[in-house]
Amino acid sequence: MKKENKNLKAMRHSAEHVLTQAMIKLYPGLKMAMGPATEDGFYFDFDYSRPINEKDFKKIEKEMRRIINKDLPFKKQVVEVSEARKLFKGNPYKQEWLDEIEQRKEKAVIYRTGDEFTDLCGGPHVKSTGKIGGFKLLSVAGAYWHGDEKNKMLTRIYGTAFETKKELDEYIKMQKEAKKRDHRKLGKELDLFVFAEEVGPGLPLLTEKGATIRRKLERFVIDEEIKRGYKHVYTPDLAKVKLYEISGHYPYYKDTMYPVMKVDDDELILRPMACPHHFMLFKSKPRSYKELPLKIAEVAKLYRYEKSGELTGLMRVRSFCLADSHIFCREGQAASVIKEVIDLINFVAKTLKLKKGKDYWFRLSLGDPKNKEKYYDDPKNWKQGEKILKNVLEKMKVPYVVAKDEAVFYGPKIDVQMKNVAGKEDTAFTVQYDFYMPVRFKLQYINEKGEKEQPIVVHRSSIGSLERTMAFLIEHYAGNFPLWLAPEQIWVIPVGVKHKKYAKSIAKELAENDFRYQLKDENESVSKKIRNGEMQKIPYLLVVGDEELKSKSVRIRNKGKDLGKIKLIEFIKKAKIEIEKYK
Amino acid sequence: MKKENKNLKAMRHSAEHVLTQAMIKLYPGLKMAMGPATEDGFYFDFDYSRPINEKDFKKIEKEMRRIINKDLPFKKQVVEVSEARKLFKGNPYKQEWLDEIEQRKEKAVIYRTGDEFTDLCGGPHVKSTGKIGGFKLLSVAGAYWHGDEKNKMLTRIYGTAFETKKELDEYIKMQKEAKKRDHRKLGKELDLFVFAEEVGPGLPLLTEKGATIRRKLERFVIDEEIKRGYKHVYTPDLAKVKLYEISGHYPYYKDTMYPVMKVDDDELILRPMACPHHFMLFKSKPRSYKELPLKIAEVAKLYRYEKSGELTGLMRVRSFCLADSHIFCREGQAASVIKEVIDLINFVAKTLKLKKGKDYWFRLSLGDPKNKEKYYDDPKNWKQGEKILKNVLEKMKVPYVVAKDEAVFYGPKIDVQMKNVAGKEDTAFTVQYDFYMPVRFKLQYINEKGEKEQPIVVHRSSIGSLERTMAFLIEHYAGNFPLWLAPEQIWVIPVGVKHKKYAKSIAKELAENDFRYQLKDENESVSKKIRNGEMQKIPYLLVVGDEELKSKSVRIRNKGKDLGKIKLIEFIKKAKIEIEKYK
Repeated sequence: MKKENKNLKAMRHSAEHVLTQAMIKLYPGLKMAMGPATEDGFYFDFDYSRPINEKDFKKIEKEMRRIINKDLPFKKQVVEVSEARKLFKGNPYKQEWLDEIEQRKEKAVIYRTGDEFTDLCGGPHVKSTGKIGGFKLLSVAGAYWHGDEKNKMLTRIYGTAFETKKELDEYIKMQKEAKKRDHRKLGKELDLFVFAEEVGPGLPLLTEKGATIRRKLERFVIDEEIKRGYKHVYTPDLAKVKLYEISGHYPYYKDTMYPVMKVDDDELILRPMACPHHFMLFKSKPRSYKELPLKIAEVAKLYRYEKSGELTGLMRVRSFCLADSHIFCREGQAASVIKEVIDLINFVAKTLKLKKGKDYWFRLSLGDPKNKEKYYDDPKNWKQGEKILKNVLEKMKVPYVVAKDEAVFYGPKIDVQMKNVAGKEDTAFTVQYDFYMPVRFKLQYINEKGEKEQPIVVHRSSIGSLERTMAFLIEHYAGNFPLWLAPEQIWVIPVGVKHKKYAKSIAKELAENDFRYQLKDENESVSKKIRNGEMQKIPYLLVVGDEELKSKSVRIRNKGKDLGKIKLIEFIKKAKIEIEKYK
Repeated sequence: MKKENKNLKAMRHSAEHVLTQAMIKLYPGLKMAMGPATEDGFYFDFDYSRPINEKDFKKIEKEMRRIINKDLPFKKQVVEVSEARKLFKGNPYKQEWLDEIEQRKEKAVIYRTGDEFTDLCGGPHVKSTGKIGGFKLLSVAGAYWHGDEKNKMLTRIYGTAFETKKELDEYIKMQKEAKKRDHRKLGKELDLFVFAEEVGPGLPLLTEKGATIRRKLERFVIDEEIKRGYKHVYTPDLAKVKLYEISGHYPYYKDTMYPVMKVDDDELILRPMACPHHFMLFKSKPRSYKELPLKIAEVAKLYRYEKSGELTGLMRVRSFCLADSHIFCREGQAASVIKEVIDLINFVAKTLKLKKGKDYWFRLSLGDPKNKEKYYDDPKNWKQGEKILKNVLEKMKVPYVVAKDEAVFYGPKIDVQMKNVAGKEDTAFTVQYDFYMPVRFKLQYINEKGEKEQPIVVHRSSIGSLERTMAFLIEHYAGNFPLWLAPEQIWVIPVGVKHKKYAKSIAKELAENDFRYQLKDENESVSKKIRNGEMQKIPYLLVVGDEELKSKSVRIRNKGKDLGKIKLIEFIKKAKIEIEKYK
């Protein structure tokens, strides 16, 4: 979906040189350290005696604009290291780079911006500063030299550049929107989850409201899967280390697994994935071909010890619940099994109001027959698996991209890719074709002739990790959850004291109809209650005064709009239909 | 509920002596080791060169009967250790006991049975062998000397004795019933759960059928609690060790906690209880008196490393889900909070078809003001807490027993006691009054005057551990689950090939009405299908032949009985009502 734009990257790198040049001019004594182009823009690290902050951006951008307007040409030059050392005399950061270049016995590459500025840099750059389109400085942060906290803390300025001003404006707008929708920010504002220092990083505590969303998602996916013939089970969140040695996960995933717990004669470990547990269930009794495809499913709690720097709200945590399943089938059944899985994924996505092609798309992730370190060595089965996955996608006419060298060690897969509001792409769910685990676990069933045969396993998730999906949905909806997922669906707001009794009777009616509501009858102004309700993104605010009391009706406010008066009984009917029809 | 019967114990101990005497006579060369009276009977450990099994019981019981009929008197005698050594010459087990008596500088107590038998024993015994009522040998097992596997394996014979033959017969009948209902046996027969060596002991894997019961129980309790104002949350199953040091659980519960996981700079541990997590949620924002009582609830996964010898099916496991809650309230609210909890417990029990007084009863568990090691030292608050609990029970006119020295370290509690089919009593749920944790965690709310105040915490469970409750219910129902809990509710059985289409249309109707059913249209005889269905304890078998096809009806079989023909539509209506009205 995303193609690398080489010109854009060169332009951003050039903008970074312009920034550096501007900084050196504006802040005498500043030492430049390094600065690359990134996926979204560029940054520049420097060493300066005084703090520089976002208030200085206007001045810096003005100087950058001046340099751009001069349309100075970028010129590449290859020089001896000794000559480069002279050019960057007094700059320990550049001298350190030069040490490395010297060790590699290479020459130094420098880029000149007209006659005004020179940096040690491999390029590429655009032709001249005038070719830099729209640019903008974004933020300032601290950054250790080489990312190592034992080194000196430098200052980092982030910026971005686009070919046109219009593209830049769109990007800035998207970033602003993303900031507003950031699930960590909304999680706090809407009181969905918290962290506690005493519990630990990456281990969120879901409040009542967050837990409601979580529970609704879980029940939705379990009920839907059961309807589609999945057999939902519960298996323990830990096992003997041995189990993960059998599966081969232990060497592969050891870095992100929690440490082994030795107790008595046992060595136990928290599970990073549930497949081995499901294999144990498969093996717990003799299986017949008549039972296949056998779809064992679980909303399984998994444990992965992510690095603290990678933890992000609910998006990346150290313990999460995956809507997981392992489908045991014959090779000849694999195509139809995978088709059914993709149907389910499309159904789930539709229910969550995600648009295929826009909010999510498919990626076919292949192995690499040459890489026998990374992938199980069985060319015939790899080829067969990749063919089956490809055929399903093509028969279903599902648009997809191909990614080489992105498979799992035991087989190829189809990834469901999503892009968050900030434009970042991530794998949300996967469908994996596995011919290797059945070998390792000696999985077998009896065929029509009474002989033992090995099944194929399709590993799949339908709604991904509940935590990550919640994070994604909070941002996708900007906190405006559809009625069936909204933690609080309705607030009842009486206009005056004399309407409290009626409001209470409405609340009773709502309770009897299983709505999640609040009766806001505290002594506060109606306008304040409405404002709060809108800030809390409550789907329906029911305001009741004289008129409503008289006609047994309610006045509905939804997302800041007055939707008018409606009979209470009608409102309940409509709201119930709204909840039901989400499917 | 259970009072110790001293005479019964003396009689059982005497029966054990009679057994020993009989064994020595019947098996020359046998060395007696030891044999006490137990809660349910007695056992006797001995060392013999050849295996003895249950087939020998008839012969042994005959010899025991002969000794009893002779009505030999039991006579106590205190002798010097040296004299006793002569009496038990050549018996290393008795000599070892005598070593210990010698070390304590005591004399040896022996009991003589007439002139026929002598054992080293503290008594007491009944007057003579004729006072032994009904007795019976039950089973044989291996047992290590002193329970230590480094020692020699001895043979152990279990038996029991009662004052009357009638009581013995009742006990035998109950044991037989208990054996039939044993949840480990039924768990296998009905395919509810399995264990896997590679996963580990005490870590059950619930199959589709067991998982259905688990899920139904969980949803039932969560939905009911939410209706009653509980705020259901999700919190992580682990935390920094520090959290359990703050709570004080770490020193108290260390023995049954899993080992600490050290990773990076963190020390993490699987939680043995959820209260500290809920306290963190309470503390995550300022709290007002207006929010109290605040009921935070969770079906919380907990980890306790039970000794392998204590693990029993689902009854005692190493990881379980507790329907837990912590209610934060003012002292003045505690009584009504506890009353509400007891109401909920009664409601849950009623739904599960448990009879108050028979299947479960209340126990008031008090602390001991003198034991400052075991209980937090705050006499005033202990007194107050105990008074509140007692008052609630009395006001509610709930019969209860009092148990001294059975409280938790942080406060007194009400236990809900249950007796399983084998007659064993166990604590199923508890309601704890806690004035101590709020001190340790510095829990506070703002009162009407804007001042900080400390809440009381009521810890409670409504349905206990889902695993243990499942084990209890499997035995209680003998596998005949009520319709709402039954993993498979209905089997549709066509009589012949020409009824398959109709059976299929019934299955479709059942699916649309959310029943859990199976269409049994494989090529097997109807009688075999019915037999299987009854063995699998399926609540409703719907048999359909010509007559049923013609009249759009079904013939219902339930627990081996033919309930006659009924219109399909009527059956569906009735079954739905049966599911609904369980509440």
